Amino acid sequence: MTTAENTPLIDVSPLPEGLPARLVEQLTFLAEVDKLKTVLRQSPLAAAARRENDAEHSWHLALMVTLLAEYADEPVDVGHTVELVVVHDLVEIYAGDTPLYDDEGRTSQEERERAAADALFGLLPADQGELLRAWWDEFEARVTPEARFAKAMDRLQPLLLNWMAQGGTWRTPGVTADTVRARKSCIGEASSALGSLARTLVDEGERRGWVERGHDNTDPVVG
Amino acid sequence: MTTAENTPLIDVSPLPEGLPARLVEQLTFLAEVDKLKTVLRQSPLAAAARRENDAEHSWHLALMVTLLAEYADEPVDVGHTVELVVVHDLVEIYAGDTPLYDDEGRTSQEERERAAADALFGLLPADQGELLRAWWDEFEARVTPEARFAKAMDRLQPLLLNWMAQGGTWRTPGVTADTVRARKSCIGEASSALGSLARTLVDEGERRGWVERGHDNTDPVVG
Repeated sequence: MTTAENTPLIDVSPLPEGLPARLVEQLTFLAEVDKLKTVLRQSPLAAAARRENDAEHSWHLALMVTLLAEYADEPVDVGHTVELVVVHDLVEIYAGDTPLYDDEGRTSQEERERAAADALFGLLPADQGELLRAWWDEFEARVTPEARFAKAMDRLQPLLLNWMAQGGTWRTPGVTADTVRARKSCIGEASSALGSLARTLVDEGERRGWVERGHDNTDPVVG
Repeated sequence: MTTAENTPLIDVSPLPEGLPARLVEQLTFLAEVDKLKTVLRQSPLAAAARRENDAEHSWHLALMVTLLAEYADEPVDVGHTVELVVVHDLVEIYAGDTPLYDDEGRTSQEERERAAADALFGLLPADQGELLRAWWDEFEARVTPEARFAKAMDRLQPLLLNWMAQGGTWRTPGVTADTVRARKSCIGEASSALGSLARTLVDEGERRGWVERGHDNTDPVVG
């Protein structure tokens, strides 16, 4: 997290004088979150030869929630689940997308993301900053059905992209089918039907040689 | 709309045999919509030197709805308004983003978009295809408070990006401040506070020379 990254984008083109203070805070935040479009993930797009960014990923999750909520094992509030996925990656604007096998990065990830949440949500009017912070905390803690289903979509979406890429990040050195299966287990915790789908895709990917067979002891962190 | 564009992405990597038919239709659609990440808009990002794509734009609108719904002049269901913005540009996957001054393109736009909606939403199970089609029709018709507010966000977001770019597409030859003001009038139809904001930004942009002064008779179609 450098100073340059924390310079609000709005400083490039400050808003005119005389606008209501609350609206200025909201617009400052809404300009700042444009940065989410520049945070690259590991996943390859299905539709183009480039990596996905966090804004595209978040939009894709919103549509997945809408269409797949019928498979949630517990009833979920679809609107609130969409809210969770729309905000779930915002902290990466300042904290970055922690690479999957960066063990050192992952150790400091929680601390960096909390500092990022303080800085980013602090741009908003206090009530809305607290609301988005609460949604992000809810997503991370996974203690509500909505957060569990949102997390399941967050794991299912890159699995679908890896399937479309006939491997994708499954081909990362050191990753095996068991690594992927462990990483995807949280899908089954929210939806037995989608957990079964995830296992089918990984099993078939393993059979086709899109992911290395066998077991390993690395942290199960692949997309 | 070429044959190549209409070839479903899922054909690149067909799903395994034996999955439930309804789930296969849903996943076919969810893979296909990855193409929204490749549909470029005219608007420049605030955070990078490139044009925005439709998926990024749709995500940005979802967050704007969440934070700015308090300014709607009529009460709006925030969750449903988010649904509308998440799906509002999907038809552009097959129909493309019609360039702002492509008069011929704009004449055929409605017909092309209806054909695109038939093709794209037809990939889904019938009940969900009808649901998303109804949401898109609702957005286009602007007869509900949610659709009016969604449309206002669709016009306010590129205005914010143009402000951040100190002109952006306002600098398109032939565009004047009056062109932009006419284009933005629908913001005030959903929210007097945000309509006032839009006028302030355009007036100030005109004062600073970011958009040409004066009046013209072109179709008010600038972002």
